[in-house]
Amino acid sequence: MDNMNLNKHISGQFNAELEGVRNQVMSMGGLVEQQLNDAIDTVHDQNLEIARRVVERDVKVNSLEVSIDEECTRMIAKRQPAASDLRLIIAIIKTIADLERIGDEAKQIAHMVIDNANKTQPPLVSIENMGRNVVKMLHNSLDAFARMDVEAAVKIHESDKRVNREYESVVRELMTFMMEDPRSIPNVLKVLWAARAMERVGDRCKNICEYIIYFVKGKDVRHIGSDNLQSILDE
Amino acid sequence: MDNMNLNKHISGQFNAELEGVRNQVMSMGGLVEQQLNDAIDTVHDQNLEIARRVVERDVKVNSLEVSIDEECTRMIAKRQPAASDLRLIIAIIKTIADLERIGDEAKQIAHMVIDNANKTQPPLVSIENMGRNVVKMLHNSLDAFARMDVEAAVKIHESDKRVNREYESVVRELMTFMMEDPRSIPNVLKVLWAARAMERVGDRCKNICEYIIYFVKGKDVRHIGSDNLQSILDE
Repeated sequence: MDNMNLNKHISGQFNAELEGVRNQVMSMGGLVEQQLNDAIDTVHDQNLEIARRVVERDVKVNSLEVSIDEECTRMIAKRQPAASDLRLIIAIIKTIADLERIGDEAKQIAHMVIDNANKTQPPLVSIENMGRNVVKMLHNSLDAFARMDVEAAVKIHESDKRVNREYESVVRELMTFMMEDPRSIPNVLKVLWAARAMERVGDRCKNICEYIIYFVKGKDVRHIGSDNLQSILDE
Repeated sequence: MDNMNLNKHISGQFNAELEGVRNQVMSMGGLVEQQLNDAIDTVHDQNLEIARRVVERDVKVNSLEVSIDEECTRMIAKRQPAASDLRLIIAIIKTIADLERIGDEAKQIAHMVIDNANKTQPPLVSIENMGRNVVKMLHNSLDAFARMDVEAAVKIHESDKRVNREYESVVRELMTFMMEDPRSIPNVLKVLWAARAMERVGDRCKNICEYIIYFVKGKDVRHIGSDNLQSILDE
């Protein structure tokens, strides 16, 4: 992990505390990535035991969010950070909120697998592929967060367009399936919700990339549109 | 507006600044409520001009989020708040994030109306009713936020169960419609997304209620389950 970029911004005093919290975020990120990965696996192999474990383990994700949040508030009150230290803490508070929601999406995907078990399934290959790409996007986002890598963040942000295109194509495929076999509608709708959950994971990864840029560049780029994002790198 | 409860918690010094930011949150809330209300209106009257205006005006909601967020970070750096002052600022940062997303949901509902214009519609009465209840839930949440009223917050939080029941019933109704007329599936799906957007507004109102409780009681109640929420009042 290359911390060069980061350490520049951290005043000596509470370096260790900040490092500690950053490590907690990475642990939380690792757990959420595993949850999402497991959820996508169950779409493929229909392993209900794993699906149920994803649902149960979401509590752990939630409690990590609460404890990291508390630690951040405590640090603000105690250390009175300013400038980039404060931006890091704010970026962390927002990142864990998105990670927690990604955990929720993973749980929802697992629920779909459990609900649709032993029922006639629509074709699941496209949604599985989409899921793999979304897991990769999350992995890359967490990696960029660990290194506070703005260039990577801009690139990952851009890659959400591909996820959106895949999502549109999954929706069209499932729509055709429903029209050909209307009795399948209730089951296919659940698969559609799962696809939607994956598409939202992409959005949340985009958010995390925006917090990385906020921390490093000191700029809130949330609503400037991804076409203008590239220019941030030149500043 | 009864500020008794709130002023107790604010140390004199930057009372005015905090009041200013709170007022900005209320303006943003008012705008978001209008956006949601207008969006639901267009589901009923299919007024495309209003629907387009909802889509355009979302930019204003976004820029309010960014400027309030900046102001909060500036206050933390300058005023070094602790205890309830800090909790209020954290609660505000989180509340405006949810308000911005409610704005996005309103935009999505308006998009559905625009996309489905002049096409065969499924019955829209139930989704309209659900929409009205969700607008009311948002209105009450903003009201509770203005007064930092914990009792109201717990009650509103509870009322999300009703929204969820309505949502389930809307989904069942639309599913039946699709099964009877499979050619309607593409249009009905858009209506389903709009229903989902409304259901999510309910979730976000719940979040805002949780921040109110966090501010007043100093407790993070995000994942404790609504059945345990009532006991918070007795503490």
